[in-house]
Amino acid sequence: MAKVLITSGPTREYLDPVRYLSNASSGRMGSALAEAFLAAGHEVRIVSGPVEIAYPPGCRVRFVTTTEEMLHAAIELFADCDGVIGAAAPCDFRPAARASDKIVKTGDDLYLRLVETPDILAALAAAKQGRWIVGFALETRDGPVRAMQKLQRKQCDLIILNHPPAIHSDRTEITAFTPDGAVLGTFIGSKTDAARAIYGWVERRLLH
Amino acid sequence: MAKVLITSGPTREYLDPVRYLSNASSGRMGSALAEAFLAAGHEVRIVSGPVEIAYPPGCRVRFVTTTEEMLHAAIELFADCDGVIGAAAPCDFRPAARASDKIVKTGDDLYLRLVETPDILAALAAAKQGRWIVGFALETRDGPVRAMQKLQRKQCDLIILNHPPAIHSDRTEITAFTPDGAVLGTFIGSKTDAARAIYGWVERRLLH
Repeated sequence: MAKVLITSGPTREYLDPVRYLSNASSGRMGSALAEAFLAAGHEVRIVSGPVEIAYPPGCRVRFVTTTEEMLHAAIELFADCDGVIGAAAPCDFRPAARASDKIVKTGDDLYLRLVETPDILAALAAAKQGRWIVGFALETRDGPVRAMQKLQRKQCDLIILNHPPAIHSDRTEITAFTPDGAVLGTFIGSKTDAARAIYGWVERRLLH
Repeated sequence: MAKVLITSGPTREYLDPVRYLSNASSGRMGSALAEAFLAAGHEVRIVSGPVEIAYPPGCRVRFVTTTEEMLHAAIELFADCDGVIGAAAPCDFRPAARASDKIVKTGDDLYLRLVETPDILAALAAAKQGRWIVGFALETRDGPVRAMQKLQRKQCDLIILNHPPAIHSDRTEITAFTPDGAVLGTFIGSKTDAARAIYGWVERRLLH
């Protein structure tokens, strides 16, 4: 049986104590993946950003807020796992500074400098060794090309291309690509069923 | 019996199709207020940003995403109500532009120009006539002073000062101020009980 790490949900990058940058990732795909792996008898660890859903009993969850925190937790837990599925949608940018008090309205525009956050899967890839990595790509254009670039950059063994309406919805449309650029499968349906499809692809290609 | 409009939850201001500015408002206070007013036999309309909670059956809810959308829905519904409780935490700033495709990482910093969004309660105040307005103030410093400034700017008949840890939590600490600057009451406890306390204050001062 395998030990699988799943990153899940969004992260938040605060500009002041109240306001943040984020996205509508709900954690539902991460949760559905956890269920699919648990149902097949595998062990599941989750690193999750702030979500309102409950993860299935039987998996251990560590909650984080920022991308930096998700990175550290993921690196620590990956060391003890056989593979990782990057189902989280971590913020790629964070405000360069975080104000200690709530920014007040003055009538003037506000200029916010955003810096890039660390790339979690790329960091895990650097410590990959014999482990496998499944990435997700959410692209609004040039999906297959960008998904393959992501796969290469993050040394993924499989990448799941996700269509934008999927975020924060219960339905999803996905395509799985292997490192040689072949389509391993496609699926349209509920996140629960999509997670089972992904489990099937991972089981076939990566678990032994 | 009164007809009450409650604004609730956060709003989102997108910089591209996936990323947005927001805050951790969960809609729980708006929902608890709706319950308190419904329990006392009043009619409740809600304008809510994106939330994961369910509002109580018996109130009509209109969902919106941005502050601008919340403003338009609130103005429309306020015309037919006796008063409004501004329990929402609308984004005060929005990106000046929204990219039509997901912004890609280039290794460079990103400069985001933010402009102020319209002030919903101030806009309702302009059409106030005989109606009452209850505002919320979430401040990280100078709470009472800023709450009173807000009360005046938005012509509130009551303002509830909320302490920041309250956001996205089930416990809350609130103080109610009247237009003459007097403390009408304070409360520390669950949001459900705080909503009942607020209902009591509104009932005593504003309902007839």
